[in-house]
Amino acid sequence: MDKKEFEALLDKKVSEVEDILNRHLPEPKGLQKTVLESMEYSCLAGGKRLRPIILTESYKLFSGSDELPYEVESFAAAIEFIHSYSLVHDDLPAMDNDEFRRGRLTTWKVYGDGMGVLAGDALLNYAFETAFGAAAGIDDALTLSRIVKAGAMLSEKSGSYGMIGGQCADLEAEGRGSDVTIGDLLFIHEHKTACLIEAALMVGGILGGADEKEIEILKKIGSNVGIAFQIRDDILDVIGNTEELGKKTGSDAQNDKVTYVTLKGIEESEAEAESLSKEAEELLKSLPGDKDFLSMLIDSLIGRMR
Amino acid sequence: MDKKEFEALLDKKVSEVEDILNRHLPEPKGLQKTVLESMEYSCLAGGKRLRPIILTESYKLFSGSDELPYEVESFAAAIEFIHSYSLVHDDLPAMDNDEFRRGRLTTWKVYGDGMGVLAGDALLNYAFETAFGAAAGIDDALTLSRIVKAGAMLSEKSGSYGMIGGQCADLEAEGRGSDVTIGDLLFIHEHKTACLIEAALMVGGILGGADEKEIEILKKIGSNVGIAFQIRDDILDVIGNTEELGKKTGSDAQNDKVTYVTLKGIEESEAEAESLSKEAEELLKSLPGDKDFLSMLIDSLIGRMR
Repeated sequence: MDKKEFEALLDKKVSEVEDILNRHLPEPKGLQKTVLESMEYSCLAGGKRLRPIILTESYKLFSGSDELPYEVESFAAAIEFIHSYSLVHDDLPAMDNDEFRRGRLTTWKVYGDGMGVLAGDALLNYAFETAFGAAAGIDDALTLSRIVKAGAMLSEKSGSYGMIGGQCADLEAEGRGSDVTIGDLLFIHEHKTACLIEAALMVGGILGGADEKEIEILKKIGSNVGIAFQIRDDILDVIGNTEELGKKTGSDAQNDKVTYVTLKGIEESEAEAESLSKEAEELLKSLPGDKDFLSMLIDSLIGRMR
Repeated sequence: MDKKEFEALLDKKVSEVEDILNRHLPEPKGLQKTVLESMEYSCLAGGKRLRPIILTESYKLFSGSDELPYEVESFAAAIEFIHSYSLVHDDLPAMDNDEFRRGRLTTWKVYGDGMGVLAGDALLNYAFETAFGAAAGIDDALTLSRIVKAGAMLSEKSGSYGMIGGQCADLEAEGRGSDVTIGDLLFIHEHKTACLIEAALMVGGILGGADEKEIEILKKIGSNVGIAFQIRDDILDVIGNTEELGKKTGSDAQNDKVTYVTLKGIEESEAEAESLSKEAEELLKSLPGDKDFLSMLIDSLIGRMR
């Protein structure tokens, strides 16, 4: 697969995920119409749909089929709902106070900050409605136990030992300036970003029937990819080109933010991202199934400057 | 059972629930310590623990035993985590902007409003971690399917078709003044308050093995009790005694809030609460098991003025 074929396939998969999201989102009606609308507004605001794509690709490695059963689609939707809610709450005046995201007004700017809180709550709650709903009508014990294991993994990785834990550490680091260590920063990257990538890979694996050892490998791949992705982000903030990235660069320096680059320098950061990325690629090779697309996806994520 | 015995038993059950909550809450440590502390602060702030008590009592009606298996304790904790998160987010500056609850500073006042958002998110997420965790180590298909059904019910009743839907309608009604109808108000009471009472009864029933018909009865009881409870609350706001209630009265009138009483008058509101309450008592009689405690609990909730 060359780069052009990969990009065409990625576009196709993004559309497929958006179709899944559309089918899972509740129709805005009734006296709760506004919160349902705000969920839709937040979820259908574009985005790379990385987590659901990674989840379904990971599933396919183990299931040996391109077909996605209902429970896999449900978990793909659920993980994107979680990602969306985290952005909605991150943008709130009480958090980052952002008015724009992907060129559109943020959810709270459109619906007010009270409804912004509710929209995020509703998306998080709906993620688990969708995950539990995946089991509706299923009565074989094996599939049920996989769904329950997948739900436990997803909720752990999005919670206070996972993503929310990273957000907590990040919120507190903001006030600590140069006191932030490389260990703190790795904790934040690992939890705030990597945990949901790990969850995507592991949930896909669990639903596809991966064994314990394979799930550990998926976790390590997710961790490496998530951290490398964040280090690259820190690097690009210093050396990147605004136009290419579609966002402002130099914002970390302007905000006096401690980043991987301010702590380790460009060269060492580059080397670290490269090494994490290579290890992830090696680990991926040890898994079954057709890994071409997933491998190119990882490369496109953390090799953005090449 | 006389009133004194009931109250002693209620106190004992409150302690039992607080013990369950303590055992389920994560220990505050690591770089996410603050968010874990804020969860604990929010959950262990006292309160009547109604929802977990109703859930476990409902379970016992059908299981025929006073023993609570792990999954029942987990769901009892989960429903209280959901109730707690809803209060934490309700109190935020973006919502009701309340600085005190039960005589203590609200969570955001202690930890800041960014951490207040995260604390609520973490509790909601943790509720579902706990619910999915209830299935850990269980491999018989019947128990698994009950846990999954209970999780689906809990998440539906706390979501945008349930409690969050009611909060959305309530938030919007605030701006509409006298335009609010009795239908709007019933929707708000039904969703914002009754849905979690319904969930408590239904989840307990599902885990205890209630059949479809019994679960419908539990739902109706929960709906009646929740709405009657809110109507009484509106009545007490007008005629109640501040000291007895432990909170300010007349606040609805001060806020120009449309309530059941402003729309229907005291007498009709009283009659409506009475009729809902009586119907709930009758329905409860049709269920199996020892209903004495549950019946007195309902009476204590919606017969607070007698």
